[in-house]
Order: sequence, then structure tokens, then C-alpha cells
Amino acid sequence: MNRALSIRSNKNGSSSSAAPRHGFSLSSLRGTVQPELSKKLYKLIKSENHLIQSHEAAGKERLSIASQLSDWGEATNDDTISDISDKIGVLLSELGEQEDLYAHNIDDSRAILKTIRNTEKSVQPSRDNKAKIADEIAKLKAKEPESAKLVTLEQELVRAEAENLVAEAQLTNVTRQKLKEAYATEFAATIERAEKQIILARHGRRLLNLIDDTPVVPGDMRAPYEYTNQARQILNDAEDDLRDWQPELEDVPSSARLENNLMPSSGSHQQTVDDSVGDETMIHADPEQSRISSGTSVTTGQVGHGYAPSETGTAGTTMNVA
Amino acid sequence: MNRALSIRSNKNGSSSSAAPRHGFSLSSLRGTVQPELSKKLYKLIKSENHLIQSHEAAGKERLSIASQLSDWGEATNDDTISDISDKIGVLLSELGEQEDLYAHNIDDSRAILKTIRNTEKSVQPSRDNKAKIADEIAKLKAKEPESAKLVTLEQELVRAEAENLVAEAQLTNVTRQKLKEAYATEFAATIERAEKQIILARHGRRLLNLIDDTPVVPGDMRAPYEYTNQARQILNDAEDDLRDWQPELEDVPSSARLENNLMPSSGSHQQTVDDSVGDETMIHADPEQSRISSGTSVTTGQVGHGYAPSETGTAGTTMNVA
Repeated sequence: MNRALSIRSNKNGSSSSAAPRHGFSLSSLRGTVQPELSKKLYKLIKSENHLIQSHEAAGKERLSIASQLSDWGEATNDDTISDISDKIGVLLSELGEQEDLYAHNIDDSRAILKTIRNTEKSVQPSRDNKAKIADEIAKLKAKEPESAKLVTLEQELVRAEAENLVAEAQLTNVTRQKLKEAYATEFAATIERAEKQIILARHGRRLLNLIDDTPVVPGDMRAPYEYTNQARQILNDAEDDLRDWQPELEDVPSSARLENNLMPSSGSHQQTVDDSVGDETMIHADPEQSRISSGTSVTTGQVGHGYAPSETGTAGTTMNVA
Repeated sequence: MNRALSIRSNKNGSSSSAAPRHGFSLSSLRGTVQPELSKKLYKLIKSENHLIQSHEAAGKERLSIASQLSDWGEATNDDTISDISDKIGVLLSELGEQEDLYAHNIDDSRAILKTIRNTEKSVQPSRDNKAKIADEIAKLKAKEPESAKLVTLEQELVRAEAENLVAEAQLTNVTRQKLKEAYATEFAATIERAEKQIILARHGRRLLNLIDDTPVVPGDMRAPYEYTNQARQILNDAEDDLRDWQPELEDVPSSARLENNLMPSSGSHQQTVDDSVGDETMIHADPEQSRISSGTSVTTGQVGHGYAPSETGTAGTTMNVA
């Protein structure tokens, strides 16, 4: 584990060298057309796409290997190898399916990050406008301090500052809620893949124990294979375990109750944790429990309203413009 | 899960379509220079190579995303986002390291499969030779039944059959032992990646709970961030849990005690399971335990002697040539 307890690239140059070339060459090019504010997240979202593709490819390979193993086993003309290799193949192909499901779940997390990026993108003009007006005022004051236009500009500036205050509030509201939601989703997906693949791998090892690998001498006949039923039972067990699988996650409650205008909904501060989780089976883990990661039910954060630029506004919000 | 309980391609056409093109185009070309007997495994081993590359690529992307997330968080100028994103990044980079370790462990399993393939390759000539001589005899009997050469050929055939009996015994001995060993290794690696990534993901969700995503109204100040110590403690917890991690696997014992000539070592039939496992910490799981996959210590099969063609022979083996 990274002992520095930080991987910020200015603290840790090696981490940037871990970036695959294709990831950067492409992203950095496209990134340049993005406003400064959303550039970093834009690139990160691109990289997540490469990550997703890698896991999809791994899933495909697994499926291919699974059927190749089964076919090879059949060709050995050894009943034991033929049956076990076919059933190992079944487990491997499910392992591949889980890898593919994981890729799709990361894609959901990626979509949530996009809502942050889109808000960043929309906030940039507001910042620019405020700066532009302040700049004009400074220039004009220097050139013709008595200009009547200064009054108009000052009024424009106050409006621009008010608009920007709203934009910045929307940005911090979306950023905190969606970052929490995106990674709660991604970590939940990591745990799901892991727990299901553990089920498959453990039953796989049980299957291997049905192979009698006691060596024979030339001319000896192998004892006939008699574990067909046990082997099938192991597959049934694996299937049952997968069907019975339940997510057990530490709750990641959200206090975010955002209106479409990305402002707090009335009463969001009185909201209790229970309201915030759309999961009936939820149990709350106390810190001790969570420490030993025997967590509770799956929660990947509240799915808030997506960002809706058309509805941006200060309607129903109080303002403390200094 | 595949309800057919078999993925043999002649039963399940779809599984072959899951094969990525690059995997086949290459393999099938090279495969043609392989003797028939080792062609299938040759291709499978090639596909395993693509699988390994996919997981390596995923690991690299994770490391890249981890540092990008940390850098993005720093740029938000939000102490909460900055600290949590950096620490999430640390967990993500470890997640990537585990993905990379997994790729290397699959490579070990792949190397074990190669020993089967090499034996298959070496057995082919013995089968061909036997068939060739039998063929010659048949032809000669038809042409000149009185030929004195028939006697010589009959003697050659007996020798060829004896040699082939040994070769086939070596093949079945190696195939069963190494198949068991290769997949015990691969399943153990799958479980290790899964259990370690679960640790990281669960602590990651704890980190997310340090983000206060209560929405603010324009002009509001965020409460100052005060979870620096808790966040660091979560990283320490994750690090401790990874350090304390121990493999707990159902034992996959091997009864194979092969000499370099791939024949049973003397007394291998009296051998008890306990002898067969090179793992002091091994405890035996009873079938019930294994069913609920609360297994015992890690065992990936006995690492037998590699295949040594130069030492092939019948030395020290009994023969029952019919």
C-alpha cells in the first residue's frame, strides 16, 4: 500500500508514469477544448472509459478460454478430464460474466462523475464574466475616473457576483453529492464482483478435488470416473450461492436534497439518514462493525436530480450577498 | 450462470463467438505448426496471455485514474474534496496494484499449463511411429505375405507399442496433476484479488462518509473540514487489514508423486494426503465447510518436477505390455 498516504502527482511522480500512453495522448488533445475548470475531470472520465474497456476485454477472454478448456478436455478422451474441464469452464465463463458486469457498473459511476464535469463546465462563464467586468472597471477607473459608465459597470458587477455566488453554490452542492455517489457506486461494484468471484473460485477448487491425479504406470488402466453427480452438484451449489448472494455494505448516506436548481430543498437539514437511503433492507453499521468490514446493506448514495441547466436559477433560495 | 451446465462449444455455439478476434487470428495461424495433440492447449495458452494483458492494462488505468482524481480534488480548492479525493486515490491505486498482481498470478497458472502442452507435443511422434509401423506391416502383408521383413517389423511394432505405452502414461500423469495445479493456482489468485479489493472498497466507503454533502445556499460558507485524522486513520486501517490478510482456501491436495521420468515414485500409492501438500499451515476442510466456502489454508497443488524429455524412460517402472 502506498506508504506516502497520498498519491497527489506533485508528491508522487511515479503515479503519473503509471498512466497508459493512449490514455493521455488522446485525452490531453480533446481536453484542450474544455474550459479550464472541467479539464481535469474530463480527462479522468476519459481514462475511466479505458478502464471499462480493459475489464470488458478481460471478460471476453475469460469466456473464450472457458470454452477452449472444455473443448480441450473433451479431446483428451479422458472421462475425468473431460467432465471436470467442462464444469471448470462453466465457472470460468461465469467469472467472465461477472467481469463484464463490473465494467458496466463502473460505467454507471462514470456517468455520475459527468454531472460534476457538466456543472464545472457551466460555472466557468459565470466566473469569466465577473472577472471581465471587474477588469473593465479597473481599467476605466485608471483612464477616466469620472466616467458615468462606471456606475453602470458597478451595477453589472453586483449582478454578476450574485449570479456567480449561485453558480459556485451549485458547483459545491453537485460536486460533494455526486463524488460521494459515484465512488459509493464504484466501490459497491468492486465488492459485488469480488464476492461473486470468490463463490465461483471456491467451488472451482472443490471441482479440482474430483480429479484423481494418482500417477499410473505404463499399461495400467485408470479407475473409471464416478464423480459425474458430485461435479454437477458443485455447479448447482455455485449457482445457488450466486442466487442467494446479497450485497452487505456499510451505508453511505447522503444529506443532499437538491432541487433541480441545485439548491437545498426545504427541510433538507432536518432530514435523517434513514430518509436518504432507498434500501428497505438497510441496517446501520456502527463504526466498530465497519472497521471489521462486516458492513450492512448496499447503498450507493441518493440518486439526486441530474443537472438541468435550463432550470438553473435562484428561485426559492435565500441569498446572503455581501 | 450458464444453465446448460456445460459450455462445450459443440453444445453452445455462442461461447465461441465470445472469442476476441485478435485471439484467434494469431493463435490459429501459429497453431497450425503445432502437432494435432497440443494444438488446442497451445491456443488456450495464447488466450490466457491476452487475458493477462487485459488485467495489466486495467491495473495501469486504475493507477492513472487514482492520481488524476487526487489532482482534480486539489484543484477544487475545497479542503474536504481535496483530502478525501487524495485518500480515495490511495485506495484506488492499491486496487490497481492488486489487479496487476492478479495478472502475474494468472501468468504462473499459464506456465503450469505449458508443461501439459509440452508433454502432448512430445507424445505425438510416439503415436505416429506406432501407427506408421502398423501401417507398413498391413501393406506388406497384402503385397508379399512371405516377406522376411515382416518379422523385423513385428519386432519394431512391439518396441514402438512399449514406448508409446510409457508416453501415454506420462501424458495422463502430467495432464491430471498439472491441470489440477494450474487451476488451483488461478482460483487462489482470484480469491486473493477479491478479498484484498473488498478490504479496499469497504474502507473507501467509510472515507466517503467523511464528505458532508449537505447543500449550501449562495453565499453560505462550508463548515471547516475537520476529519483529516479520521481519514488518515481509515487509510491506516486499510493498510493494517491488507497486512493481516491471510489466504483461507479449501485444500486441493495432490496424490501425484512423479519422478522426472513422469512415472510414479515408489510408494506413491501409500502416500497420504497430508504428505502431498507443501503447506505447514494446512488444515483439512470437511465437505460441509467447503460447501459454505469457509475453507482452510492455501494450497495450489504440489509443484512437481517439470517435464524432462531427456530423462524419459521406463527405468524403475513395471510394464504390463499386452
